Amino acid sequence: MHSPIDFYFDFSSPYSYIANEWIDALAARHGRMVRRHAILLGVTFQAAELRSPVDHPLKREYSLRDFARSARHEGLPFVMPEPFPIPTQNAARVFWWLHDVQGPDVASHWTRSALRAYFVRGVPLNERAALKALAAESGLDAEAAERAWNDLVWKDRLRLANEQAVAAGVFGAPYFIVDGEPFWGNDRKPQIERVLTTGPF
Amino acid sequence: MHSPIDFYFDFSSPYSYIANEWIDALAARHGRMVRRHAILLGVTFQAAELRSPVDHPLKREYSLRDFARSARHEGLPFVMPEPFPIPTQNAARVFWWLHDVQGPDVASHWTRSALRAYFVRGVPLNERAALKALAAESGLDAEAAERAWNDLVWKDRLRLANEQAVAAGVFGAPYFIVDGEPFWGNDRKPQIERVLTTGPF
Repeated sequence: MHSPIDFYFDFSSPYSYIANEWIDALAARHGRMVRRHAILLGVTFQAAELRSPVDHPLKREYSLRDFARSARHEGLPFVMPEPFPIPTQNAARVFWWLHDVQGPDVASHWTRSALRAYFVRGVPLNERAALKALAAESGLDAEAAERAWNDLVWKDRLRLANEQAVAAGVFGAPYFIVDGEPFWGNDRKPQIERVLTTGPF
Repeated sequence: MHSPIDFYFDFSSPYSYIANEWIDALAARHGRMVRRHAILLGVTFQAAELRSPVDHPLKREYSLRDFARSARHEGLPFVMPEPFPIPTQNAARVFWWLHDVQGPDVASHWTRSALRAYFVRGVPLNERAALKALAAESGLDAEAAERAWNDLVWKDRLRLANEQAVAAGVFGAPYFIVDGEPFWGNDRKPQIERVLTTGPF
């Protein structure tokens, strides 16, 4: 068995939503597992002195168009959520709580559920009531989820994940590391497929 | 005959070099022409409040790696030039001089010649002697080329091209407009191919 594919994402990143839908099948075709890392883009943007694409004149209009078109290109439903972007630390803390307590598969299920909820149905992951309802809908104990996102343990766990991401060179999302080779962006899918097929090129 | 594909590029953009190598064949497969626009990324960066990818911590290291890997992915030679990036106004003025006086095909030939010179052989397009030598090597009248890049007419022509690019929404390069649909980046090739094949998706 080869080493897993590291996949860094933010719950408020449209291209992360898209990539999250194809990465498992791609990895499986090449006998790989996916190791997910929920992070906060705000932290990596600060480290890299970047801003969100929608915080730039001209690039904002293009990006809003490209998010939806790139989703359609993958055959995925997508409805631009409003507000966007949103703070996602609570959703990310739930991820790490599930990951460390119940294992990566449960955390992956939460990832898919929360990304789809935000980017297809506009569920505001930053709002307490909406996030609790989504947790319940996703088969989690909603009260326990809320306790987790308010717990210093999971706040620290997310902080650690952000620090480790920056240390690994992550400056945006989705970001992948395959056998030490970094790939940034949903649009690096063909290159990731190639490196998994034939090795470094 | 369908409308041409607008292709905006900067002579100091690695992804523009790569895209310049595939855009004509892709267009031809779909019965389209390519309409090139030499611009200065410095102008569009300012309009969009952006900086070069290599001006950002973390993103710099990734980008240097990705430039070369993306070239290899297209089967193209690539040697990271030093210095990089460079001011390319003289090369761009030569483009517009050729474009307006001798026609787009001659300007396209210059485009290919200059992008390859910089990104394969490291020819410093920002240096007077090197640019003159390249002009001669590319079959141009080197003295006339130098007069053109010092001529207010072609300085104004480039300024107009930059203004028109910003007005069209261009914030980076390569940037394509296909039947009113904008695409930014060498990595949008599959989407461009798709829109040419089946129309807007």
